Amino acid sequence: MATKLLSRYSWATSPFLVSAPMRVMSGPALALAVSRAGGLGFIGPGAKTQDTEVDLEQASKLVKQTRGSSSVFDKLSPTNSVLPVGIGYQLWGDDIDIAVAAIGRYKPCAAWLYAPKQSLKEFDDWSRRIRQASPDTQIWIQIGTLKEAKQLLTNSEKPDVVVIQGAESGGHGRATDGMGLMALFPEIADAMEGSQIPLLAAGGIADGRGVAAALCLGASGVVMGTRFLAASEARISRGYQNEVVRASDGAANTTRTLLYNHLRGTFGWPAEYSPRTIINKSFIEHEAGTAFDDLKVLHDEAVKKGDSAWGLEGRVATYAGASIGLIHGVADAGDIVQGLQKDALKRIQSAGSS
Amino acid sequence: MATKLLSRYSWATSPFLVSAPMRVMSGPALALAVSRAGGLGFIGPGAKTQDTEVDLEQASKLVKQTRGSSSVFDKLSPTNSVLPVGIGYQLWGDDIDIAVAAIGRYKPCAAWLYAPKQSLKEFDDWSRRIRQASPDTQIWIQIGTLKEAKQLLTNSEKPDVVVIQGAESGGHGRATDGMGLMALFPEIADAMEGSQIPLLAAGGIADGRGVAAALCLGASGVVMGTRFLAASEARISRGYQNEVVRASDGAANTTRTLLYNHLRGTFGWPAEYSPRTIINKSFIEHEAGTAFDDLKVLHDEAVKKGDSAWGLEGRVATYAGASIGLIHGVADAGDIVQGLQKDALKRIQSAGSS
Repeated sequence: MATKLLSRYSWATSPFLVSAPMRVMSGPALALAVSRAGGLGFIGPGAKTQDTEVDLEQASKLVKQTRGSSSVFDKLSPTNSVLPVGIGYQLWGDDIDIAVAAIGRYKPCAAWLYAPKQSLKEFDDWSRRIRQASPDTQIWIQIGTLKEAKQLLTNSEKPDVVVIQGAESGGHGRATDGMGLMALFPEIADAMEGSQIPLLAAGGIADGRGVAAALCLGASGVVMGTRFLAASEARISRGYQNEVVRASDGAANTTRTLLYNHLRGTFGWPAEYSPRTIINKSFIEHEAGTAFDDLKVLHDEAVKKGDSAWGLEGRVATYAGASIGLIHGVADAGDIVQGLQKDALKRIQSAGSS
Repeated sequence: MATKLLSRYSWATSPFLVSAPMRVMSGPALALAVSRAGGLGFIGPGAKTQDTEVDLEQASKLVKQTRGSSSVFDKLSPTNSVLPVGIGYQLWGDDIDIAVAAIGRYKPCAAWLYAPKQSLKEFDDWSRRIRQASPDTQIWIQIGTLKEAKQLLTNSEKPDVVVIQGAESGGHGRATDGMGLMALFPEIADAMEGSQIPLLAAGGIADGRGVAAALCLGASGVVMGTRFLAASEARISRGYQNEVVRASDGAANTTRTLLYNHLRGTFGWPAEYSPRTIINKSFIEHEAGTAFDDLKVLHDEAVKKGDSAWGLEGRVATYAGASIGLIHGVADAGDIVQGLQKDALKRIQSAGSS
């Protein structure tokens, strides 16, 4: 299944590594760097749906600039005119008309759909319209529970890829009914086996060990978000990125909470979702009983401070996964991808010979 | 490291699989069946510490009966007189004098120590006294957080094996600061790398995929509890065992709660721990607001019903891990061990060639 999947992304190499569509932070530079290295990079949702059109246009320009200069993207067959990056949308908040128009114009190789407003049936409408606008754009759908997997199988539009996200993940994941990948992934894989849909693993993976482990669980590839927050191409404040590198012990120092969404003025996520974030003073004082309005004042003052708004003494949202303790420095996305591929294969070999 | 570890248990084969010391339910028959198949079986703590002496005596007799009949245990060198099963203790509740006397008399190959009353320093006293009483008994210590790993490294008695338990685990694990193995294991492994102590993975693993994945994360072996609740040799009520086989979707249908401890009259676990259990009517009605005293009456009536006290309509404790959805039948422990070994190697091979 993994080999068949790879064949749809002609430039990609095994093991198949993917950078997640992190909202705003996964821009064209990061996505293209990941794809260029043999992975698949996703552009994340924007502050507004329109922003994804701007990002796709930028990615399209960058790809055209490198064509012909013996770029890895020359592997794209002439008949396959897709853009070698994907694009992500959050269904509850994104505008389907604008999204479909952008996909129709720039033909990203994949569209990653997540977080419907009320029902997984919404994926059908999005999938159908995207496929009409761009038949070669593969439909990726992210889920985090067995129940969602079973519901998805009753949809009329079959996704091309399903991403299974474990509770270890950063950013928005299942609020209360998540579970670690180790138990979650195999059970969903069993339930979806008959569908022949390739499954990718996401959540808590940031190095070759996790990649190798996910492949053993049955994943056809691995998605990472947090690891790429520490990529030099990430569209992220320096203070945020430094904090991802500094922080460790994801079990103790991250939590799922809506507090930072609310401090930022973000409302509307369906109740099933809550984001994992690195704990800082806002959360600690919230737990100690400080009123939201007081925290909001302090938060908004902190925002003005720029990079020092993050960190142990910081107050602003630092969405990140439980894998923060495995990330020790910033590196180019291409080096991250190729280093992880190499290390994962080494780990698998070592596990087989022990 | 895995090879070096295996050499301490002369009958064991790779990959190294271990049945966890589940309280009462892991008796001599289960432990010996696991060891006989090339794994390492642990006898669990008893309702009273004295019970472990009875169990060790029984195991000792069973081993003597099979010696000479070309038993796998004949591989034990004549100079190595350990019993080829381990024994588990919960420090907060078990009596050290009785435990050490039992270990001194029966010389189990390993003693698994868990859940100190107040401080990880208690492991020092237990380790020292066990080693004095039985120098060949290896000390295994179970932890579930990075903080514990770091504290353990400051202890004066170095454990022979550390078991890292992920949040997916059944029975008593970390109450609030646990994390899925995928992110937890590698970070603890990095922190303990200098110690050269072999690390085993536990929690949420019940098939060859999980075993293979854990080995890729860097584990020298894998511990399973829930999987062996469905072993024919488990000392478990039929109703309980049937429920482990029936239940699925561990994320949705298990939870960590002290409710069932309290319904059973079990108090005293240190606050760091809480058990994962399959949800049934007691928990559902507790969540809906039914008073504890009313639940207790209903619980105690249910206990009298025997096997029907478990299940969807049941009311009694059904401690189990999030891997319940991967367990589809009861099998002999030896077949479980050897089937998982074979499947794990197949999974690793397949991951390496994809």
